[in-house]
Amino acid sequence: MDISSLGEFRFIDRLTEGATCRKPSTVTGIGDDAAVIERDSESYTLISSDMFLEGIAFDLTYTPLKHLGFKCVVAAAGDILAMNGTPEQITVSIGLSGRFTVEMADELYEGIRAACDKYDIDLVGGDTTSSMTGLSIAVTVIGSVAKDKIVYRGGGKNSDLLCVTGDLGAAFMGVKLLEREKRALHGNDGVAPQLEGFEYLLERQLHPLLRTDVIDALAESGIKPTAMIDISDGLASETLHLCRRSNAGARIYLDRLPISSKCFELGEQIGVDPVMAALNGGDDYELLFTVPVDRYEDVLRIGGIDVIGHLTAPEKGAALVTPDGSEIRLTAQGWVVE
Amino acid sequence: MDISSLGEFRFIDRLTEGATCRKPSTVTGIGDDAAVIERDSESYTLISSDMFLEGIAFDLTYTPLKHLGFKCVVAAAGDILAMNGTPEQITVSIGLSGRFTVEMADELYEGIRAACDKYDIDLVGGDTTSSMTGLSIAVTVIGSVAKDKIVYRGGGKNSDLLCVTGDLGAAFMGVKLLEREKRALHGNDGVAPQLEGFEYLLERQLHPLLRTDVIDALAESGIKPTAMIDISDGLASETLHLCRRSNAGARIYLDRLPISSKCFELGEQIGVDPVMAALNGGDDYELLFTVPVDRYEDVLRIGGIDVIGHLTAPEKGAALVTPDGSEIRLTAQGWVVE
Repeated sequence: MDISSLGEFRFIDRLTEGATCRKPSTVTGIGDDAAVIERDSESYTLISSDMFLEGIAFDLTYTPLKHLGFKCVVAAAGDILAMNGTPEQITVSIGLSGRFTVEMADELYEGIRAACDKYDIDLVGGDTTSSMTGLSIAVTVIGSVAKDKIVYRGGGKNSDLLCVTGDLGAAFMGVKLLEREKRALHGNDGVAPQLEGFEYLLERQLHPLLRTDVIDALAESGIKPTAMIDISDGLASETLHLCRRSNAGARIYLDRLPISSKCFELGEQIGVDPVMAALNGGDDYELLFTVPVDRYEDVLRIGGIDVIGHLTAPEKGAALVTPDGSEIRLTAQGWVVE
Repeated sequence: MDISSLGEFRFIDRLTEGATCRKPSTVTGIGDDAAVIERDSESYTLISSDMFLEGIAFDLTYTPLKHLGFKCVVAAAGDILAMNGTPEQITVSIGLSGRFTVEMADELYEGIRAACDKYDIDLVGGDTTSSMTGLSIAVTVIGSVAKDKIVYRGGGKNSDLLCVTGDLGAAFMGVKLLEREKRALHGNDGVAPQLEGFEYLLERQLHPLLRTDVIDALAESGIKPTAMIDISDGLASETLHLCRRSNAGARIYLDRLPISSKCFELGEQIGVDPVMAALNGGDDYELLFTVPVDRYEDVLRIGGIDVIGHLTAPEKGAALVTPDGSEIRLTAQGWVVE
């Protein structure tokens, strides 16, 4: 059977369905942003692993290796933030084919170290291997969270507000822009890329940041989200995950989606719908979380957070509400093996 | 600069030299079999990551996917044992190209789950992604160890006995045998492989076991090794690592190396030196450890452990002593990017 005929999420469910957890130290296994392991009487250890393969997760024709290293750390550590935790240690394993030089590996690690320095994470291990083709990167982040601070995907309640950090779709538009320039330059090495005016989109694609600022601000404001999830795989699929775990439906209002004007500008040029980019584009290292409706003003006061909708009773399902009031059912788009 | 001109170990040193650990919870970062993280007042958390890439770490023309899954868990968990710890949780990330079906992924996970069941490890997370070519597997194992039980590479003392579990070189001979049959069958699909009589070598290559039995037996005998290391990368290179960390030299006696008679038998047939296979072949999921010289009889009483030599003063270096008393300097062989 083709993996694509199952889809990513059913494929993962199938692979992991027999994985029951029996160790007393395992609090939560597969099914949230990070696994939760007993640490001491006050806190949990959080673990999350990600894999980034050349040609799938990144294209080195337009991704500087230093940026790639930085981004891999951000991508992996985002799962710890999504549990309301603090990333503390990281392991990085790399596979390199013969076309990679020592200097190229240095550049990659410069980015990894820069991210570790910025977010106060210790690089404590990993593996190196040769590879038949291309660059493979696997990252595991270890974090911690106080037991009374942990936030799961499953804590959302009917009528809770759906909040999202930052803006959406820009990273996807950034990669579309880079791909356009790659095609334009194919065989025309002397021509400079036409990227001016869209630096924001490139920044979002090539140099995403970790939203530790939001996690800190929520804590300072005394707001503990009822549920939270990292949305780097796309807002639509992650909303569905949060709803499924919280046994809730959701309404997201299209005109509340935070989409940069640059997304609309480029979208018009290249014929890509910015709303689809925001819903399914992915690569936005932002957080989706829910808070009780009475925290509406407190959340907005923090800044950089948008309330895009609310949870509903589960039987209502998850839908996008357009300005004219019609509803479009949300559907997930995972990766598909090509 | 070519990575091969540096060699694996200097390459790793170069990549990780700036990786200083600053989190209070990081006890030990890079440089041992596993990273050591503070857990509670009595115990540490151990973390180790490994990457296995198709065409480098395994060849699917003769490796059943179920065996591969099992072996990846054993390989990764061995690093936890080498710290005298207990593996508890595991994350597995996989990248699959379009030639892999759902059933093939099922087989791989059947092996992963079988190993987790056998060794009482919880599969708690991971990642799945498509891949441009082949199968990529990244595993992180999380373990625990009591603070007074942890064993590092660096605790060996002059005159301590060098002990090794199991036998050496058989897994390397097993892969040589499989490669010979692969070549013989190339274009001759009707011919059955000539593997009879060498089942032990195949078993060592395709279905290695985790030496939890030895760790348990040492504990029961009240023996805490002074230093320990996993030798799946080869006895020679790992002895050098242990010596460097312990600030010691070593003498290994060639006629004490535990080498199966099957290694000599096949070695003769295919022209491979069994001693080189034992020293540098790798893929033996065994442990090298040191104990004070007065524990000689206690160690031998356990069974399945050979005393192959002893540590010396550091200025003596590390050497293999042949039966006629001459000394051959030990050299490391890591992987080289091809």
